[in-house]
Amino acid sequence: MSNTAERAARVMEICARLSAFTDEPGRLTRLYLSPAHKAAAHETRAIMTGAGLDARIDAVGNVVGRLGPEGAPTLYLGSHIDTVVDAGRYDGTLGVACAIVAAGEIAATGRALPFALEVLAFGDEENVRFPTSLSTSKAAAGGYDAGYPDVRDDHGVTLAEALAAFGGDAAAIPALARDPAKSLGYLEIHIEQGPVLEARGAPLGVVTAINAAWRANCRVVGEAGHAGTAPMDMRRDALAGAARMIAAIEEIGRAHPDAVATVGRISADPGAVNVIAGQVAFTIDARAPREETLAAMIAEIEAACPRIAGERGLDFECTPYVRSPATPMDARLQAALAEGARRVGTQPLLLPSGAGHDAVAMSRLCPVGMIFVRCERGISHNPAENVLPEDAGLAAGALLEAIFALVDSAT
Amino acid sequence: MSNTAERAARVMEICARLSAFTDEPGRLTRLYLSPAHKAAAHETRAIMTGAGLDARIDAVGNVVGRLGPEGAPTLYLGSHIDTVVDAGRYDGTLGVACAIVAAGEIAATGRALPFALEVLAFGDEENVRFPTSLSTSKAAAGGYDAGYPDVRDDHGVTLAEALAAFGGDAAAIPALARDPAKSLGYLEIHIEQGPVLEARGAPLGVVTAINAAWRANCRVVGEAGHAGTAPMDMRRDALAGAARMIAAIEEIGRAHPDAVATVGRISADPGAVNVIAGQVAFTIDARAPREETLAAMIAEIEAACPRIAGERGLDFECTPYVRSPATPMDARLQAALAEGARRVGTQPLLLPSGAGHDAVAMSRLCPVGMIFVRCERGISHNPAENVLPEDAGLAAGALLEAIFALVDSAT
Repeated sequence: MSNTAERAARVMEICARLSAFTDEPGRLTRLYLSPAHKAAAHETRAIMTGAGLDARIDAVGNVVGRLGPEGAPTLYLGSHIDTVVDAGRYDGTLGVACAIVAAGEIAATGRALPFALEVLAFGDEENVRFPTSLSTSKAAAGGYDAGYPDVRDDHGVTLAEALAAFGGDAAAIPALARDPAKSLGYLEIHIEQGPVLEARGAPLGVVTAINAAWRANCRVVGEAGHAGTAPMDMRRDALAGAARMIAAIEEIGRAHPDAVATVGRISADPGAVNVIAGQVAFTIDARAPREETLAAMIAEIEAACPRIAGERGLDFECTPYVRSPATPMDARLQAALAEGARRVGTQPLLLPSGAGHDAVAMSRLCPVGMIFVRCERGISHNPAENVLPEDAGLAAGALLEAIFALVDSAT
Repeated sequence: MSNTAERAARVMEICARLSAFTDEPGRLTRLYLSPAHKAAAHETRAIMTGAGLDARIDAVGNVVGRLGPEGAPTLYLGSHIDTVVDAGRYDGTLGVACAIVAAGEIAATGRALPFALEVLAFGDEENVRFPTSLSTSKAAAGGYDAGYPDVRDDHGVTLAEALAAFGGDAAAIPALARDPAKSLGYLEIHIEQGPVLEARGAPLGVVTAINAAWRANCRVVGEAGHAGTAPMDMRRDALAGAARMIAAIEEIGRAHPDAVATVGRISADPGAVNVIAGQVAFTIDARAPREETLAAMIAEIEAACPRIAGERGLDFECTPYVRSPATPMDARLQAALAEGARRVGTQPLLLPSGAGHDAVAMSRLCPVGMIFVRCERGISHNPAENVLPEDAGLAAGALLEAIFALVDSAT
């Protein structure tokens, strides 16, 4: 059996084991600090221990498996073990499994590294249960929001209460922040959650940046009227106007390389076959790997929509509610990950990440780098999420070899 | 006080009286065969009797006020007294009131006509309670559907049961059909329910045709995907495609004179800010005064939408569910109504009707003609529906003078 096949079997077995821990029988749902998350965290700790790591569960619920002395400069490897509702088994968990397998191989061989390794299994990446954002990786990186312990889930339970039930301790979270001076970098493996690698025939991709993102709620106001009796030239049809805006937004997304712009949600009022729409609401989601690109797109959208509205006697309002900056991946870590991929025999694609990841939070602490793994038809957040075992084995091997490449380049 | 002012006062008073009869306290809702409809029908009969007509309520619930001997050739005047939910007080009722006032003036003066008059207050024009279409005017015209008595409302009550509770008799409906040989014509006054007369500064309009209409449910099928991770050139975005179709449909409506085309309803699935729409459903409502025009529009729509879908790798389905022919207004009745309007001192506009009316059902029996009355901002099916008293007085006067014009032209 090749190294890749052995690693593949180990990674897939860890993903399968953790997929048994769910809050909902019959489908995989593992929300931050739920009973299933607690059980999965304990299982993850056991797996880490079995792989030769010094493992514990910390105050915010992260599972931490360390290889190397406390206080030594540290390279972090990780991803998350919480899931969305009705999830697939690879989103997050695959990265934790690859990190355990890579660190475990180093532990097993006894090879000495010039730095410590720490495998981190974060618990709040999906942000489903609480109104937080990457709270557990922020705790590690030193960016934890002081208000998080007081936020509540839909049942009125505060995060601090849920954390106490889990076995954590909100008061101890600030002490979890790692020392930037001793943090060498963070490497994360994650399924692509998109179709690019599959379409290009590449098992692995090296991420160049996590895209800057902008989201807005838009409202177009015209005048409702009888679809039979209002002549075309006397209408202020909010939906006909919104249709032009949606077309313009798509064109703007297409005009910028590596950028995307999406209108995913729309509603028309009153919404009857024989009534001209008086109001339309829609959302915009725009992302780009570079700040300047996204800024240009926003400016173009904010010019095009009011212009279309003005031509049609419509009112237009745009209320942005998300603006997250781009997170560039560190050039040295990108090079090490690409070298790692090549050492296991695969040429990685370079691509931006359209989705956010724990690496965004960790970038506050240290340089970050990511590998994407090809996933079937780009499907994620869905039980149909799938990864080829071979690709999972290549990912774990590339991570291991990237660590060695960093050792090589440092010496 | 001028004749117009007197007529205005009478018409507005009848509209006000009937507006008191509602199925829902606090707003006007008077559905076919409801207690409010029954009470309004009895009140209408009393008003007709007071105006000197020989009035009764027939087996299908219509109020019939006759002036002249049974068996004589008859000119019908009318409209409806049922309403939509949360209605205005003029839709339908204004036409009944004008007919009563006009016929009442003839009764009061004792002037002999060479034909009988029959004022008809229909009861099922809005088709809100039962899945019928103009059932009560069809009963008068001889086009009653044999299945109507068995249809049920949302509470499971059959139309026949509701009719019995009202005091009618489903078995006696076929005998209500008038004899075409003795039916000279049908004249209906109705609020425009559109903005054209107000925009052109005309109190009255003579209707040239009731538009042919076509309605369809459309479905665009693409592929749902992550709005951050699917590159623009790998998407099959159902909403971006639907937006182009909506724009094309509007252009087709604009390109044909007197025609309209509307997309009033839309939904996108799954409908999340960060998910590319995998499916979109929307409706089309297209109308034109001439059959050939509507046929051309349908052909253009049915070519444009699949072409747009094909360019974008989308599937497109269009399921038509309404196709009603145009109902041209009789040239002689149009001329008489225009002459009537001029005799009361106003130059009527000629315009098509985008909405259906009882005149469509009556056209099976005899020539039909309609006058539209200017209404405030085109608002209808809404408590804000409003008509100037002066315009209502002009309408009643124009109807009266049109009857005299028909007498003049026949002699």
